[in-house]
Amino acid sequence: MTVVTPDLKASTSRRHSEVYKPSSPVVHFDAGAPLRLACQQDLAPFSIAYETYGELNAAKSNAILICHALTADQYAASQHPITGKPGWWENIIGPGKPIDTDRFYVICSNVLGGCMGSTGPASINPKTGEPYGLDFPVITIGDMVEGQARLMDHLGIDQLFAVIGGSMGGMQVLEWASRFKDRVFAAVPIATAAWHSSQNIAFDEVGRQAVMADPEWAGGNYYAAGKVPRNGLAVARMAAHITYLSEEALHRKFGRTLQDRSSLTFSFSADFQVESYLRHQGSTFVDRFDANSYLYITRALDYFDLRESSDGVLANAFRGTSTRFCVVSFTSDWLYPTRESRRIVQALNAVAANVSFVEIETDKGHDAFLLEEPMFFATVRGFLNAAAVKRGLAARDGTAG
Amino acid sequence: MTVVTPDLKASTSRRHSEVYKPSSPVVHFDAGAPLRLACQQDLAPFSIAYETYGELNAAKSNAILICHALTADQYAASQHPITGKPGWWENIIGPGKPIDTDRFYVICSNVLGGCMGSTGPASINPKTGEPYGLDFPVITIGDMVEGQARLMDHLGIDQLFAVIGGSMGGMQVLEWASRFKDRVFAAVPIATAAWHSSQNIAFDEVGRQAVMADPEWAGGNYYAAGKVPRNGLAVARMAAHITYLSEEALHRKFGRTLQDRSSLTFSFSADFQVESYLRHQGSTFVDRFDANSYLYITRALDYFDLRESSDGVLANAFRGTSTRFCVVSFTSDWLYPTRESRRIVQALNAVAANVSFVEIETDKGHDAFLLEEPMFFATVRGFLNAAAVKRGLAARDGTAG
Repeated sequence: MTVVTPDLKASTSRRHSEVYKPSSPVVHFDAGAPLRLACQQDLAPFSIAYETYGELNAAKSNAILICHALTADQYAASQHPITGKPGWWENIIGPGKPIDTDRFYVICSNVLGGCMGSTGPASINPKTGEPYGLDFPVITIGDMVEGQARLMDHLGIDQLFAVIGGSMGGMQVLEWASRFKDRVFAAVPIATAAWHSSQNIAFDEVGRQAVMADPEWAGGNYYAAGKVPRNGLAVARMAAHITYLSEEALHRKFGRTLQDRSSLTFSFSADFQVESYLRHQGSTFVDRFDANSYLYITRALDYFDLRESSDGVLANAFRGTSTRFCVVSFTSDWLYPTRESRRIVQALNAVAANVSFVEIETDKGHDAFLLEEPMFFATVRGFLNAAAVKRGLAARDGTAG
Repeated sequence: MTVVTPDLKASTSRRHSEVYKPSSPVVHFDAGAPLRLACQQDLAPFSIAYETYGELNAAKSNAILICHALTADQYAASQHPITGKPGWWENIIGPGKPIDTDRFYVICSNVLGGCMGSTGPASINPKTGEPYGLDFPVITIGDMVEGQARLMDHLGIDQLFAVIGGSMGGMQVLEWASRFKDRVFAAVPIATAAWHSSQNIAFDEVGRQAVMADPEWAGGNYYAAGKVPRNGLAVARMAAHITYLSEEALHRKFGRTLQDRSSLTFSFSADFQVESYLRHQGSTFVDRFDANSYLYITRALDYFDLRESSDGVLANAFRGTSTRFCVVSFTSDWLYPTRESRRIVQALNAVAANVSFVEIETDKGHDAFLLEEPMFFATVRGFLNAAAVKRGLAARDGTAG
């Protein structure tokens, strides 16, 4: 796969074109089929852009929905149209891989509020003919899931064999399992939480304030002026990025190693590798992501509280479920630590749900869910194989399991 | 003590006047007495602003130097001239308190690079007659300590009874004990580290990038235009502030509690208390602190590496010491966790230094060193009492100990 080094201006225009004319297939839901949002507004019309991998079987019983995290998109296992990089989960999705596209029909859609073809703040507001900006309604994780359910209706998929996702994707998995109990045979929430903690909200708020502090943000109306709040969004990404890595991973990767120099410069240039790395993370992110989408999606994360929306008792969210759950956490994840997964498992146990829980030993931090972690991969593969047998899906060799 | 709510413009002008005409006593070192900095430049002239509490005894043997943290100053136990708030360590310094001003002569000076009267980037560059801005040399923790040593020379204090400080203050304590072995009878490094970790550098870099991203920063020359990079500095402070509190402390203080409202607003206003709190922390900080000082002092923190400056072996920094050490850490401090203090203790043990180590159980995070923690206070009181006996200082009742 060719990795293209993005050219700034070209990538900005590519980013715009992905909002309005995405490379992915798109389903348009017209004004006659509005989406009632948690804020009680109707979103209409709206679009969902998605990618698929593998083949849907005749019974439509082998579909897996992949839910993406804050800054990811539908390009889970295909080349990214802006960066040219491989899909963000290409190591786990594919022929013979743990999420095996020889067996399963894999769907990944861009969340509502995103900027890769699904309707979001950069989309055109039909009332004005201009991009929504801050007139876009504040959406929730539940709204994202309702949008995905519409896509499943469109594809004629009544029940998903599995819903899988890490981080914010894991929250969508929990929402799916709670809202649509009959439509989810198996659920794999990974490195996630049933609500955003005070510290989670705090980091998100720093990011939002960084974006909003940038004069180029212009109250969210930067599109018309052809501007981008680059600096603010880069700072937001830098701050967030620290939370994705463990202290150990940062130490192992960078320590106090200097960047292309043998001694300190006594200046504010990026003397340390970790500074150079963060600056790079910030600037490349801006080339592929919309600043307002960052605001809206972090807001959805902060609003997420499955306990609160279940009368204060998390177990209520899953009462009556027959879904099979596999909850996964990582030891060095300090963004959504193992204790958050334990809360989910305890709630599932309280309603006698079918749940297995695996804590993966790793020093890679939250980002471990995106990396080649053998025990994690083996867990997903094993769980899906066993669930497929229960679902009566043929094994890879053509037998029933 | 009256707490004055700061008025923005008034406080900005008060902040400027504290740079040029501080409320504290100031020692001026003229062009004939330059300070040779680690970067090999000479700083001249330069000033050190300081506060004192208690009385220096005739033998000048009862002096304690308090070293302040990143955003603090010399007002350790006296009202702050800008905010009107009590001193930042008034709970531990005073008559009968653990750092007992009935017995000890307590000195606290503003660090070089600061903005409360000691020479820093907001000070006038004698070569241009304008504020230094980024022409101020990059300083180190060692440079701060050399400046403090000059102040001790000026006060005629050959040996300090104790040097005490938390966070960056603790780094200065370690530098004092390493550079001036004969001048430090006792040393109390609290909630600190012998070098900045990759994660520490990462957070500081986010803060610096936030400041520098603010157009009002103007390449560091905002003074002439009468501007202040308020937004950038506020974002920097918000991000840093998260690292000062433990996840548990944030949860206990705020959880997901809403701010003055009964339900979510579906907007970007500060729905959650923790958002409101962070915004307040950001905006009040800007009223009392200079943005360039923030850049320079975080740079000094990141450059700090006592192991590197001791031929790669931390123990070398303390070889030959006869100082008595009391190393203190806090269980929930994730900025400078206990393992960092253990490294210091191990290095001291390797050179057979006199060292005691206390890890205080608390859920308050790094900021615990500024708070009323009974076990912490008892530790400091007990250690100073015992050291005073060894030093032959009279006990409070007038006996020798």
